[in-house]
Amino acid sequence: SQGGEHGDQSLVFADLTPEEMVEVVTYLHDNLGVPLVDAYDANPSDNCIYYVDVQLPPKAEVLAFLDHKGSRPARQALAVVYFGNQLDPNITEYVVGPLPRPTAHRDVTVQKYGGKLPYHRRPVLGKEYEQIGTFLQKEAFSAAPSFLSRVFNYDGTNFASLTSAPRGFRSGDRSTWFALFHNVSGFFLHPVGLEVLVDHSRLDASQWRVNRVFYNGQYYADFAQLESEFQQGRIKAEAVKKAPPDGGFSSLQSRATPAAPSPLQYEPQGPRYSVRNNHVASQLWSFAFGVNVNTGMRLFDIRFQGQRLVYEISVQEAISVYGSNSPTGMITRYMDGSFGIGRFTYSLVRGVDCPYSATYLDTHYLIESRTPATHKNSVCIFEQNTGTPLRRHYSNLYSLYYGGLSLSALVIRSIATLGNYDYVWDFLFYQNGAIEAKVHATGFMTSSFLHGDGLDYGNRVGAHTLGTIHTHAIHYKVDLDLGGTANRLVAHDMAFESVQVPWSPEHQIHRPRLTKRVLHTEDEAAFPLHSKMPRYVYFAANSENKWGHQRGYRIQIISFTGDHMPEASPMERSISWERYKLAVTKRKEEEPTSSSIYNQNDPWTPTVAFADFINNETIVNEDLVAWITTGFLHIPHAEDIPNTVTVGNGVSVLLRPYNYYDMDPSIYSPDSVFFNSK
Amino acid sequence: SQGGEHGDQSLVFADLTPEEMVEVVTYLHDNLGVPLVDAYDANPSDNCIYYVDVQLPPKAEVLAFLDHKGSRPARQALAVVYFGNQLDPNITEYVVGPLPRPTAHRDVTVQKYGGKLPYHRRPVLGKEYEQIGTFLQKEAFSAAPSFLSRVFNYDGTNFASLTSAPRGFRSGDRSTWFALFHNVSGFFLHPVGLEVLVDHSRLDASQWRVNRVFYNGQYYADFAQLESEFQQGRIKAEAVKKAPPDGGFSSLQSRATPAAPSPLQYEPQGPRYSVRNNHVASQLWSFAFGVNVNTGMRLFDIRFQGQRLVYEISVQEAISVYGSNSPTGMITRYMDGSFGIGRFTYSLVRGVDCPYSATYLDTHYLIESRTPATHKNSVCIFEQNTGTPLRRHYSNLYSLYYGGLSLSALVIRSIATLGNYDYVWDFLFYQNGAIEAKVHATGFMTSSFLHGDGLDYGNRVGAHTLGTIHTHAIHYKVDLDLGGTANRLVAHDMAFESVQVPWSPEHQIHRPRLTKRVLHTEDEAAFPLHSKMPRYVYFAANSENKWGHQRGYRIQIISFTGDHMPEASPMERSISWERYKLAVTKRKEEEPTSSSIYNQNDPWTPTVAFADFINNETIVNEDLVAWITTGFLHIPHAEDIPNTVTVGNGVSVLLRPYNYYDMDPSIYSPDSVFFNSK
Ligand SMILES: [Ca+2]
Ligand SMILES: [Ca+2]
Ligand SMILES: [Ca+2]
Ligand SMILES: [Ca+2]
Ligand SMILES: [Cu+2]
Ligand SMILES: [Cu+2]
Repeated sequence: SQGGEHGDQSLVFADLTPEEMVEVVTYLHDNLGVPLVDAYDANPSDNCIYYVDVQLPPKAEVLAFLDHKGSRPARQALAVVYFGNQLDPNITEYVVGPLPRPTAHRDVTVQKYGGKLPYHRRPVLGKEYEQIGTFLQKEAFSAAPSFLSRVFNYDGTNFASLTSAPRGFRSGDRSTWFALFHNVSGFFLHPVGLEVLVDHSRLDASQWRVNRVFYNGQYYADFAQLESEFQQGRIKAEAVKKAPPDGGFSSLQSRATPAAPSPLQYEPQGPRYSVRNNHVASQLWSFAFGVNVNTGMRLFDIRFQGQRLVYEISVQEAISVYGSNSPTGMITRYMDGSFGIGRFTYSLVRGVDCPYSATYLDTHYLIESRTPATHKNSVCIFEQNTGTPLRRHYSNLYSLYYGGLSLSALVIRSIATLGNYDYVWDFLFYQNGAIEAKVHATGFMTSSFLHGDGLDYGNRVGAHTLGTIHTHAIHYKVDLDLGGTANRLVAHDMAFESVQVPWSPEHQIHRPRLTKRVLHTEDEAAFPLHSKMPRYVYFAANSENKWGHQRGYRIQIISFTGDHMPEASPMERSISWERYKLAVTKRKEEEPTSSSIYNQNDPWTPTVAFADFINNETIVNEDLVAWITTGFLHIPHAEDIPNTVTVGNGVSVLLRPYNYYDMDPSIYSPDSVFFNSK
Repeated sequence: SQGGEHGDQSLVFADLTPEEMVEVVTYLHDNLGVPLVDAYDANPSDNCIYYVDVQLPPKAEVLAFLDHKGSRPARQALAVVYFGNQLDPNITEYVVGPLPRPTAHRDVTVQKYGGKLPYHRRPVLGKEYEQIGTFLQKEAFSAAPSFLSRVFNYDGTNFASLTSAPRGFRSGDRSTWFALFHNVSGFFLHPVGLEVLVDHSRLDASQWRVNRVFYNGQYYADFAQLESEFQQGRIKAEAVKKAPPDGGFSSLQSRATPAAPSPLQYEPQGPRYSVRNNHVASQLWSFAFGVNVNTGMRLFDIRFQGQRLVYEISVQEAISVYGSNSPTGMITRYMDGSFGIGRFTYSLVRGVDCPYSATYLDTHYLIESRTPATHKNSVCIFEQNTGTPLRRHYSNLYSLYYGGLSLSALVIRSIATLGNYDYVWDFLFYQNGAIEAKVHATGFMTSSFLHGDGLDYGNRVGAHTLGTIHTHAIHYKVDLDLGGTANRLVAHDMAFESVQVPWSPEHQIHRPRLTKRVLHTEDEAAFPLHSKMPRYVYFAANSENKWGHQRGYRIQIISFTGDHMPEASPMERSISWERYKLAVTKRKEEEPTSSSIYNQNDPWTPTVAFADFINNETIVNEDLVAWITTGFLHIPHAEDIPNTVTVGNGVSVLLRPYNYYDMDPSIYSPDSVFFNSK
């Protein structure tokens, strides 16, 4: 093969197979000793399995196995179970194993979270949304028949609804604003101006209530009040033209006739990488990968020329904080990990989402179902020739020669569709030993019905559509391991010094000087989002390169973040990772993730509060993790219709060698070109 | 053709043809009435033509011609003449025309610069460097024969030298530090530790003098002193291993055997753009291009779907400010425009510098010669499929469909080799109407001989090689014209406001709000390099899109600049454009460029001081120009050997539509893909 070598060691990081998922579900049904309903059909007052995913072994065990001939760690699953059908409803997390034939389960909830997980923190099931939909259609809406039919021609099918979150103001609240849209293609751009606040906190759906109704700038106690005022002619109904089924301006259909195809890539002698199981290898690179059902794509044991650089790099969370003059919009602070970035990683379209010639792989999830779902072709791997030189020099001073090489990157990609938005998650590997984690946002914006002072919260992008201002912030975990786990964090920067000119002491020059600083503690290594950060920040190994410098990898962040929510906000701690553009902490097995799927529905008592990781521990000669925030402020504009484009809406984290090698390793690439005049 | 349409209007921006250059030179020789020596052979005390380039017509004339059926502006050349052979030596700039048969020349020096151009400001000719080399070899070095032969085996050929600049501390100074290197491939990485300060200010080369010698940390009055101390054994000579002719670690030769080739691009039905003369056109885009002998690549009259967006986008200057503990390094503040970015735009290598299938074009220069030089294949144009979607959405909420399109960019590129460094200059055009100006740095770093406290100024990258800290800053001029020349500059950003929740007044939320500000004056629109800038800054037209918003194009900057030189420095005004990451000024015909080729050798009395452009004029409804600084701090490290890589060392300016259109124009691209479940 032209790719690199594969062992089966990478299976230690592998996602569950569908067979393993089925085994775990069967085991739990047989052994939990309580009735379990399929989550697809479960009422809030039922017990059900929310999801099953792999439970990765502790790093120490994995390193013993990979590096020191230790035994293969036991393979285990994590199962998250909703217990709605008991006196003290709660969420319980079990580790189930060993796979493939589980024999035991262990409740890890208290160990992981320091207490039980209150039931109200649970992510909303599809079934619960469906029940809310039924409640609205069958009960709530029936109080306003003439309003709905005369203003919207409402027929029971022509509304689509979009949830907001969080769902209240205090722990325990579960009152959600839903915005209603015309149910056409690209409905996110067709708000009808009607929004409804549903209290669905009771486990008995028959006790759910409408708490408030909003229409075109006015709040009403309920639909009955709205209907009554409408019939009294006190409601200014906005005449909205009926959208065509294809959505009209929101349609993704091409407005052009096909013409000559764009340039395409081909591989003259086939791919220069290979994939086996969850392992990718090229002549230079190798890594294992997986897709977590909540947080999405993650890579492990990334090696360049056989040397591990990264133990783990993973997406932790993606949030959006919205502003609007409509309730659904103004309350929305989406935490996408809670909805599930991995589970919404869908099939990729050849030639658009990835090159035609890419390698496409399936992923499998068990969530809200008794049976695994397979997402065909949902991960792609390819090598991309960027058309740009990685390096080059043309010499005609003293001697005539040319040397260079074209920049080709090995890429692994998945795309997650979170309702309206699509996130393109890339990890790129370059011939010079650099790694890049990149994310682009595309898909539909969501919107509010334009009214009143709406233009203080965004731009008008359609006849009645307000594109609402919001932030995008994405959190990455980067567990670099350079020459082992004992690393330190070093900052290099420049400062001008004013000095007397040695050969002309009557003159002064302003001379750049290299400033160096070892960051000793977590507090020193936590850089507020918009603070000035040293321009070179790097992880350093406990070893030196040929020239006596600590071998390092630099972290370079490309980001355009908006502002972080004020810490005065009662929910801020749930997204406190966004306080920092970079924070480096001592790695802990008990701090595997910076967010939690339980934060979305109870952000006022965050299950995981990243800020607590930063407690001034020493970070010198420790196993360190870098937590990195990237993102951008999004003020939607006309060109976000029908979809946001990736150009300019990409952010990334680059990991670049900094004295790690003795010279640029691309010199060993077979792609190098050199010629001279001889 | 699959490309767009071509007229011959673009010729108004065309570079001179070789024939035109010859005509101008002939005209000047016949009409200046003084003896003119070929600059290739000219002594400082001679008269010679430094360069001839096109003199573009004033914008008003061009717009009258392009947009209002005005007559074609006269075609003219700019000729820069060194008058060394007269009582008051000076530099004179002439406009010569009309082409192709010039009949007149006009001295424009005083009009352009407010006075005569002192001769000491002139860029150093190749001949002057050659004479300095001869002076060193024949005269200066002969005072230290045993030192040179015993320490370096000096044989008259095994040194290469590199100039520094500026050349002194006061207007009129012309004393240059030269660092000596082993004359091997990649000599920039082989400093020998010997540097020499030559005063070459006198027009009579026989009066040139060595002012100071530096060896391995010590300064000497001259070579005689160095020789004497050496013979007395008072000099610690550093034993430097002889570098092999290929440079060893500095060689660009591949250390690998060829293997399978990287992926390549092909165009199934041929290119989707076409080129005629200096005009490039695709179905969406068209523009004119040229390469200025000093400032390099520049584009004019960029149109999307036939509408002009940009009148001019051009590189203005590239500077590097170095720190070192050696004199050549510590004094170096290169202004590359003075050396000539365009003239060093050399041939591109197919498959490395640009894709194999790109279109390659020649450029022509007349500089330091009586005859034009042709640089074959020095501009390339291609369409690049990035392998990434420009936009996409997969829907399985309410309806099942997919829409997307792959991101292909039309690219024009040239690469300039300025001694050690290679700058890759790109302009990219996207299907959504965005334009990007991007530059990557590659090629060789320059270096100092490692001694003493050298590590305060960089990293050791070789046995005796200190990679010296420096900044890179690049200045772009962007003359956007949106719906005509009368534009304004607007800033949008976000701010959190704390508000009572309308349906739950006992609670507060922190809500993002859109903030808007029109920037009224040049002073308001000048953003210091590291200041907080509004996140959305855009040029706005005097017209509105379908939704009532001012049609705009946003400026998004991707940059990692180091610090700007303190304003206390006597030379700071010569590079005062670097004070600002963005400055928007009222466009003036008298302010065509932000720098000058005369700034390098007299930075203490800058011929052009950009800061003076900013004089608080109104910028509302005026023809505006955006001046943008991008760059990065470069602390060279082992992986810069042998060459700096482009990964992570690229910076750019993105011009993105912001309510300019009514929706994303990519919806009209034939590359759009859509399918649904029906
Ligand atoms: Ca800690
Ligand atoms: Ca680590
Ligand atoms: Ca001005
Ligand atoms: Ca303008
Ligand atoms: Cu967005
Ligand atoms: Cu550099």
